[in-house]
Amino acid sequence: MKSHRKILTFHTNTRRAFLNITPQVEAAILESGVREGLCLVNAMNITSSVFINDDEGGLHRDFERWLEKLAPEKPHSQYDHNGFEDNADAHLKRTVMGREAVVAITNGKLDFGTWEQIFYGEFDGMRDKRVLVKIIGE
Amino acid sequence: MKSHRKILTFHTNTRRAFLNITPQVEAAILESGVREGLCLVNAMNITSSVFINDDEGGLHRDFERWLEKLAPEKPHSQYDHNGFEDNADAHLKRTVMGREAVVAITNGKLDFGTWEQIFYGEFDGMRDKRVLVKIIGE
Amino acid sequence: MKSHRKILTFHTNTRRAFLNITPQVEAAILESGVREGLCLVNAMNITSSVFINDDEGGLHRDFERWLEKLAPEKPHSQYDHNGFEDNADAHLKRTVMGREAVVAITNGKLDFGTWEQIFYGEFDGMRDKRVLVKIIGE
Repeated sequence: MKSHRKILTFHTNTRRAFLNITPQVEAAILESGVREGLCLVNAMNITSSVFINDDEGGLHRDFERWLEKLAPEKPHSQYDHNGFEDNADAHLKRTVMGREAVVAITNGKLDFGTWEQIFYGEFDGMRDKRVLVKIIGE
Repeated sequence: MKSHRKILTFHTNTRRAFLNITPQVEAAILESGVREGLCLVNAMNITSSVFINDDEGGLHRDFERWLEKLAPEKPHSQYDHNGFEDNADAHLKRTVMGREAVVAITNGKLDFGTWEQIFYGEFDGMRDKRVLVKIIGE
Repeated sequence: MKSHRKILTFHTNTRRAFLNITPQVEAAILESGVREGLCLVNAMNITSSVFINDDEGGLHRDFERWLEKLAPEKPHSQYDHNGFEDNADAHLKRTVMGREAVVAITNGKLDFGTWEQIFYGEFDGMRDKRVLVKIIGE
């Protein structure tokens, strides 16, 4: 069994953002030399998300509006978590979108449907945040 | 290490539906010959879901009503994603229910609690959609 | 390839509770002898959750209030699932929080960001409930 570990670092200029990180995950799979296996991609911060969906700007705006409806950022005082911090909403938004994606590797490649792309979802940005890629297989 | 890959195809007669796919996943595990390992089951379409819950019709009606409340289908015009398409709500509903389930294989079988069953959740049906089963282990 | 399986049992004194189970998962990883691999931690009951977030009491109160807003427990009669049972809301809450976490093992340890902790989320407690830890790797 082979294993491979890679850390990706992101720093967005806005509090919230969606980044397509599929190319970075594909590169990690190539580096690993794994042909058949599983690849875990997870946010290492608890106010960020890794999820799989469509790379379509309209949909991303829909996600932004929808998450603000389900777990509004403001007023900050509505959350007990917000004292020294103001990011309680980011913890909730990341919960809706998910911490991680587990993806299959087949013939040395991401085994994906036509429109599947991997995204990093930032909900408390403007600082360095990390994503872990862990690959096991043969 | 062994690995096994199987594609399941579903075509529902309604826009939304829940299908119990536990028997198909069990069959894939048998075919794989894996006795100890992990099994990834994921929707390959981004308007569908794979999740684990109870096989109870009342609960499925509750899920349908609840998802319509959290991410209503209509009016289609409320979503930026809806132009050529009308399925933005399906992307959101699938996000709530999840893309994938990772399940343990022990002694050659699904290692499940009493009531755990694997479901395919369709939110934009009436056409062929695919689910990937990927198994690794020994 | 090595594999290891462990069952954790929890019994909360309240209907809903969040328990930090990181130490128990770390112990299972030590027992497994796996240095590089993946660890699946999943609720075996369909009214419970395993998720990763911050060990901060204010945030947990925020989660409780937020989940009650998204999927209120009462009136019990609002859900079709509630006849002999009264726990439909627990099925929905667990769906929001997630059934499982997949975590990386690197150098024999949980490969975690600074604030990541693993929680058991109970939404229909006051009885024995189980969590499965399944580890594969080398």
